[in-house]
Amino acid sequence: MTVDQLAYRGAMAKLGTAVSVITTSVDGFRDGFTASAVCSVTDTPPTLLVCINRSSRSRDRFVLGGPICVNVLSGDQRDISSAFSGKLEPEEKFAVGHWDTLRTSAPVLRDASVNFDCIIRNITEVGSHSILFCEVEAVAVAEVEHGLIYLNRAYHILPHNI
Amino acid sequence: MTVDQLAYRGAMAKLGTAVSVITTSVDGFRDGFTASAVCSVTDTPPTLLVCINRSSRSRDRFVLGGPICVNVLSGDQRDISSAFSGKLEPEEKFAVGHWDTLRTSAPVLRDASVNFDCIIRNITEVGSHSILFCEVEAVAVAEVEHGLIYLNRAYHILPHNI
Repeated sequence: MTVDQLAYRGAMAKLGTAVSVITTSVDGFRDGFTASAVCSVTDTPPTLLVCINRSSRSRDRFVLGGPICVNVLSGDQRDISSAFSGKLEPEEKFAVGHWDTLRTSAPVLRDASVNFDCIIRNITEVGSHSILFCEVEAVAVAEVEHGLIYLNRAYHILPHNI
Repeated sequence: MTVDQLAYRGAMAKLGTAVSVITTSVDGFRDGFTASAVCSVTDTPPTLLVCINRSSRSRDRFVLGGPICVNVLSGDQRDISSAFSGKLEPEEKFAVGHWDTLRTSAPVLRDASVNFDCIIRNITEVGSHSILFCEVEAVAVAEVEHGLIYLNRAYHILPHNI
């Protein structure tokens, strides 16, 4: 017998995470969503994973195996987190922040703590979520002072250098 | 062409994570390791994942599909992180901390921020790492004031309630 969903979600709130905005561009249409379920898998080859809810409105654009960028937010980018977790139309989300590209065509957020520019290599379905396995084509690390952490349903700002 | 391993690891250091000690007990032998690559997957059924290096000395005991506990460390448990990331013999690691059990036979660390007592349901190999998909049988949440975060190769202590 597994634990009930409410107890699980309450417990999972105690696991602190970075806050990332995951972006893609398919046929010129950009989209993105805010995620806390991002995890390094291996450096041979450099691979990370991202979990996305299968009921997410953004999911369809992310399961085509296209380019994807994991933009790990810095301490002063809470507004970006809000824009990409709300109900805005895809292109409206990009009204906040400055967006470039790196190696792939996925939107890359300027002044994020770090950007991982990736290609989706594999997708695994587990329950309500899809797990995107992403091979990292390029990275960019900005000289920002603070990172953003989400813990116990609140944002925290942490110095990168202590 | 993917990014090189050194650049990848340097970039991944900018992704803040919780610090967890992952434990098991097989035929009465306990073992454990410190992990930052822990991630919620879905709440239907409650499932998380843990990545473990295939070259880890502890790996053999964790790929038998047995019980497993994810103990998310609280702010004053850095010594536990050190013990389980070092070269101690398995049983010696448990000299620090107080250990109980919950529903399964996996060791459960007292006064952790949260314990996820799990059964391994599936294992996927990706490059140098094994991904353990764990179904959560029981959780315990302690009334601790601070959580432990690892960011830019340093520990940080964060209040659970702000």
